[in-house]
Amino acid sequence: MSDESQELGITESKSHKPGEWYAEVVQKAGLADYAPMGGFIVTKPRGYALWESIQDALDGWFKDTGVDNVYFPMFIPESFLEREKDIVEGFDPEVAWVTQGGHEELEERLAVRPTSESIITPFMADWVRSHRDLPLRLNQWCSVVRWEATETKPFFRTKEFMWQEGHTAHASSEDAWKEVWTRLGQYERVYEDVLAIPVLRGKKPEHDKFPGADTTTTVEALMPDGKSVQGGTSHHLGQSFAEAFDITFVDEDEEERTAYTTSWGLSWRALGALVMTHSDDQGLVLPPTIAPTQVVIVPIWQEDTKEDVLEYSEGIAEELEEAGFRVELDDRDERNPGFKFNEHELNGVPLRLEIGPNEVEDEEVTLVHRPDNEQSVGDRDEIVDTVDAHLEEIYDKLYETAEENLEENIREAHSPEEIMGTIGKHGGYVKTPWCGDEACEEAIKEKVAAEIVMQPLEDEGGETAGEVPEPEEDECGVCGEPADEIAYFAKSY
Amino acid sequence: MSDESQELGITESKSHKPGEWYAEVVQKAGLADYAPMGGFIVTKPRGYALWESIQDALDGWFKDTGVDNVYFPMFIPESFLEREKDIVEGFDPEVAWVTQGGHEELEERLAVRPTSESIITPFMADWVRSHRDLPLRLNQWCSVVRWEATETKPFFRTKEFMWQEGHTAHASSEDAWKEVWTRLGQYERVYEDVLAIPVLRGKKPEHDKFPGADTTTTVEALMPDGKSVQGGTSHHLGQSFAEAFDITFVDEDEEERTAYTTSWGLSWRALGALVMTHSDDQGLVLPPTIAPTQVVIVPIWQEDTKEDVLEYSEGIAEELEEAGFRVELDDRDERNPGFKFNEHELNGVPLRLEIGPNEVEDEEVTLVHRPDNEQSVGDRDEIVDTVDAHLEEIYDKLYETAEENLEENIREAHSPEEIMGTIGKHGGYVKTPWCGDEACEEAIKEKVAAEIVMQPLEDEGGETAGEVPEPEEDECGVCGEPADEIAYFAKSY
Repeated sequence: MSDESQELGITESKSHKPGEWYAEVVQKAGLADYAPMGGFIVTKPRGYALWESIQDALDGWFKDTGVDNVYFPMFIPESFLEREKDIVEGFDPEVAWVTQGGHEELEERLAVRPTSESIITPFMADWVRSHRDLPLRLNQWCSVVRWEATETKPFFRTKEFMWQEGHTAHASSEDAWKEVWTRLGQYERVYEDVLAIPVLRGKKPEHDKFPGADTTTTVEALMPDGKSVQGGTSHHLGQSFAEAFDITFVDEDEEERTAYTTSWGLSWRALGALVMTHSDDQGLVLPPTIAPTQVVIVPIWQEDTKEDVLEYSEGIAEELEEAGFRVELDDRDERNPGFKFNEHELNGVPLRLEIGPNEVEDEEVTLVHRPDNEQSVGDRDEIVDTVDAHLEEIYDKLYETAEENLEENIREAHSPEEIMGTIGKHGGYVKTPWCGDEACEEAIKEKVAAEIVMQPLEDEGGETAGEVPEPEEDECGVCGEPADEIAYFAKSY
Repeated sequence: MSDESQELGITESKSHKPGEWYAEVVQKAGLADYAPMGGFIVTKPRGYALWESIQDALDGWFKDTGVDNVYFPMFIPESFLEREKDIVEGFDPEVAWVTQGGHEELEERLAVRPTSESIITPFMADWVRSHRDLPLRLNQWCSVVRWEATETKPFFRTKEFMWQEGHTAHASSEDAWKEVWTRLGQYERVYEDVLAIPVLRGKKPEHDKFPGADTTTTVEALMPDGKSVQGGTSHHLGQSFAEAFDITFVDEDEEERTAYTTSWGLSWRALGALVMTHSDDQGLVLPPTIAPTQVVIVPIWQEDTKEDVLEYSEGIAEELEEAGFRVELDDRDERNPGFKFNEHELNGVPLRLEIGPNEVEDEEVTLVHRPDNEQSVGDRDEIVDTVDAHLEEIYDKLYETAEENLEENIREAHSPEEIMGTIGKHGGYVKTPWCGDEACEEAIKEKVAAEIVMQPLEDEGGETAGEVPEPEEDECGVCGEPADEIAYFAKSY
């Protein structure tokens, strides 16, 4: 048992070595393992269950808002990818190439999809004839491959990653904007309501847009180590893809017009943000909204009290299950309560019920929160309401902690020294007026590895959709030239 | 409109040109399109919705019976695939090879997974230490690629196809057998209860097993054109994979033992069988169990009756939706009822409600079944029960037709001439005693392209698990030598 106890312990510290700590939590809590090829991971049952929860939530919202799921081939002929060169200058994707099929060389290389615009858009062009075919909203859940040579970080940086990619076509730019906001709003909702992570909504600077997009909008989440995570992006593609791939339609006046398209994606990086945001040196911490097990019941018995304690515990487990909670009764004989506590802490079970002879006698339960170990006692006969209230409280505590971290870490700066000093000292977001010149970002990036991760947006409806509000002060925080935009600098994952 | 009417019509005949008819139904009913690369298809919203229904059913049953979902990389290093050569002589998979990543040649080729035993089994070996870790049951929903050069037939023959692959490890051969039967039973259930297709359960002959398996069990469905479809397979892998990849565990007596493994898979070929079995020259036919739209309401009005007819129709649509049916009210102005009838027939909506001024006046509805156009009248105030009964009747009719086709097409034969003559004349299954020699199968195969698709199985429990019952007569139907097995010959997809 000593070996196994050791396996349970997280040895790295979140505050001192966040990278090592993260890798250890992911592995020891059973979320993922490293695959034999660098850049790839194996998603284990507990990790995949979390991804399924995100899928279930988003997929339901997508379907409620007119999206149909489809599946396109995982390979894209090189000539199809090449057509994106018409749209994006210098387009040169880092992809995995299939060059042999069976024992033969292929005549044309096939890219393993890095994203699917170039194969989906021609089909959309084929399927759209009339204004009655619009809007056309397609989505697929799949994995994509991008051959980037960086260190593997499960869910954050892997050559293959799971995501959903949505692709839509609309009759007008306004309709496309509405789509962009709908999906960005759903991404925000999945972070806030499912993952208990507040996010900032904004857009990427022009030079950092999705290749070919008019505007790339993003939700950004701030991690406890002060770095920003790009949590999901929703792109207004304007007419660039529609023109390149010829998505036209006959409108109500029998005129032929070109459509507007959008695309939007959220990847398993959301799981990385989840782990990074809430977990601690005891292991995984999960909000009850996504935890596969929300409540674990640990009975504590001696030989003479075993029967009573177990019977009492089983009654509670049944009642909670019937009420719809995800409950586990850990009645293993071969483990002592201390071991069980550690294991369920490691695995991120939000609420633990401890039940010994005293609880049985007093008709009570002892409730312990993860992660702060807050302990209280509740009445047996109000168990369902009590557990419900505690789970809500646990969610609120996690959300509030993350929200405080976000709010405290948005700071203003008005000179390069101040920007770099603030990032160096505190991390987080540094808000500054910006002239719009990429060179100003480069100057900061070279010195402190921070970049413009986000720009706030004007009111989302109407004619200013996609525009950045003007700053109150009008000198660029980096070069001092006239500035008419606001930019948020941060280090990022 | 004339153009679009033409698009709705199926021009090929199921009985005369089943191949062309099938391809036309798949495309015109909006299930799939051909991708630009031979061997690949694009699964469209209506096709993908059917696959999601199969997934939902099976995934729920898997989870209820102890299976966890996971996700393994889509690439397998060549050296991992090579290890299967220890298990299977002459193993030489036809796969797609990734040889370049970004702008560089890879040091080792990566196979796009054709199936995942060779990458999953080593991880199972790592995760299994003690008998407490068993059974270990993993499943993934993904696509796989097999580089076979054949004509593309959507859902039946494609280089990339969607499936689920289950992989399990057990402490004993008996436990592995139970697993094999559990999964085969769930495949049978999805065919019979969801797709309305009766199947035969059996095993593949020794020479046609999954490479490395002890026994390959199968569910086989008979198509109306007399060919058999292998509907799903469940393999008892014995200890061959466990030995090659070293899955050992410490049992209750602290002895180290080798595990037994199984694998099992069902692909979107089930959709092919669905289309082929029930559909007709008017288009797709779907059992109500899987139809995305179960009931379509077509209001039939003149200008002066429009308001009454629509209001009456909307009331019915709401009541049916509340009762949990998947209902569409087709109140499009720009289409006449005849066009709508054709379109919903093409798309396989099982039950049509026609509502005109007469129905409104008499407080009735007219109900029309797909595919036999059986028409009847029901009372408005019993609409929920009536629709429920009709949907059940439609399912029963489809199932019974398929069952009759199956029962009428299992014939016995006792000489090569009789086997070949029966297959040539009727198609279907020909049951015959068999000596077990592959050469006897070859002799038939060469002449009439029929092979042994299935052998019936002994009672599934106990010591005879996986054994084929002895035939009543004891001379091989092909060579006349002593025979102690029964074999079913058929042409197959």
